[in-house]
Amino acid sequence: MQVIEELLANDKTHSVTFAEILSQCIDACVSCELACNACADACLVEPDIDKLRRCIRLNLDCLDICAATARLLSRRQTVDRHLQAQLETCARVCASCGEECRRHAASHEHCRVCADACRWCEQQCRGLLKALPEMVETGSSPQA
Amino acid sequence: MQVIEELLANDKTHSVTFAEILSQCIDACVSCELACNACADACLVEPDIDKLRRCIRLNLDCLDICAATARLLSRRQTVDRHLQAQLETCARVCASCGEECRRHAASHEHCRVCADACRWCEQQCRGLLKALPEMVETGSSPQA
Amino acid sequence: MQVIEELLANDKTHSVTFAEILSQCIDACVSCELACNACADACLVEPDIDKLRRCIRLNLDCLDICAATARLLSRRQTVDRHLQAQLETCARVCASCGEECRRHAASHEHCRVCADACRWCEQQCRGLLKALPEMVETGSSPQA
Amino acid sequence: MQVIEELLANDKTHSVTFAEILSQCIDACVSCELACNACADACLVEPDIDKLRRCIRLNLDCLDICAATARLLSRRQTVDRHLQAQLETCARVCASCGEECRRHAASHEHCRVCADACRWCEQQCRGLLKALPEMVETGSSPQA
Repeated sequence: MQVIEELLANDKTHSVTFAEILSQCIDACVSCELACNACADACLVEPDIDKLRRCIRLNLDCLDICAATARLLSRRQTVDRHLQAQLETCARVCASCGEECRRHAASHEHCRVCADACRWCEQQCRGLLKALPEMVETGSSPQA
Repeated sequence: MQVIEELLANDKTHSVTFAEILSQCIDACVSCELACNACADACLVEPDIDKLRRCIRLNLDCLDICAATARLLSRRQTVDRHLQAQLETCARVCASCGEECRRHAASHEHCRVCADACRWCEQQCRGLLKALPEMVETGSSPQA
Repeated sequence: MQVIEELLANDKTHSVTFAEILSQCIDACVSCELACNACADACLVEPDIDKLRRCIRLNLDCLDICAATARLLSRRQTVDRHLQAQLETCARVCASCGEECRRHAASHEHCRVCADACRWCEQQCRGLLKALPEMVETGSSPQA
Repeated sequence: MQVIEELLANDKTHSVTFAEILSQCIDACVSCELACNACADACLVEPDIDKLRRCIRLNLDCLDICAATARLLSRRQTVDRHLQAQLETCARVCASCGEECRRHAASHEHCRVCADACRWCEQQCRGLLKALPEMVETGSSPQA
């Protein structure tokens, strides 16, 4: 998102590479949150709602976790250990939700879009997790 | 956001024009939420934090309201009266937060970015409010 | 909630009467949020889910708005005009959601509990709205 | 909270013991969320705000994670693996935030209340984590 890029551009806390990975991950979390929310809502008007019960439920869990992750990530002055745990949780729920959405992707376009958003978000969380340790070591925060 | 555009493209509920206004408003709410969150976080490491107390507080209120608005808007199958009230609330808090951020825009780039995000979000909410009545009249939802 | 009462007891910002109204309203918002969330989840396993589509949808809108309202209220150092707008929005969505849940109260106990939580929350929001103007006049915040 | 107890009383999904542990954990998460929110807000008007920067920041992370955890837990029809990860994340952030709040407990009553809420929430999350495996084995959900 443009606003995140603008903010990170003016932030000397992180290296350019890390700022890019972070920015992409925030974007992926927010996209996944909205895709899950919209997918759940669209499922609620489908004639075959009976088959979509688990999909709706996972959508709701996934969007709550993605929303919390995006908030933590856009509060980027310190990197604490709970951020790592949150990213792992987020990757996990995206995997579950994406797998369920994938099963309905052929019949419902909103499930296809949501499955893609989940997979992308899972990948970005895992990518950021790999980039984190370096950052924690170098002590990125003045207050940490 | 791309995901929202993709989802709305496959949704026959709304006219193309309305879908565009809706998509832009969701995007503005999410951008404003993240800008407020990042601004509050950046304020928390500024040497002149004493002058930024009210800014941080309004950031927090604004981000909570923007987040709720984005969720309601991306659940778009029905347009209920509380959506109108929520959009008015959102426009109001964006106006207050934007005004406060504007006062610090010269000294803090994050406040400048946030002030712009607030103004944009306020405008989009007001624009959507104007487009809503037509939609409510035509009865956009199968379950309404 | 005990934690809210403890915090307000140590807060000299507000009169005892106002602190009680505020505390009850926060409690009502949080209870309504959880009741809506649990009701939506319970609806998702009901055999007659087809009749509960609108109920689930209103549950989701209502819980998002109640959650934002509780956050704003427990951030109580200043009373800004957007708080008033948020309380009105909250009362309105509680009225809609409560009305829908009431229709299923005879067949589903979770809808009965949720309808009661919505009505209680609506009443508390309206009660707090009546108590607000006095407070805004007396200027409760050092930073306002 | 009364509403959660009422809802769980009518839910045959779980054993009485598990329902009680679950109910207490939801209550602890919501209390911690509100305590963190109120603590951050109170810190924002303290004369020694300079020393409370990290406290405010951890309050914000902690409340976002507690809020997401409470939502997942009150959506209790299925127990998925991401719930376990979320509980671990929640226990971790509560430990960090509680530790920071404890350092200011002597000077600020709101930090004392928040430190207690964090410790209680951490304990409840860990308690629920121990009770979970049994539940996952017995397959508590019709859709799982």
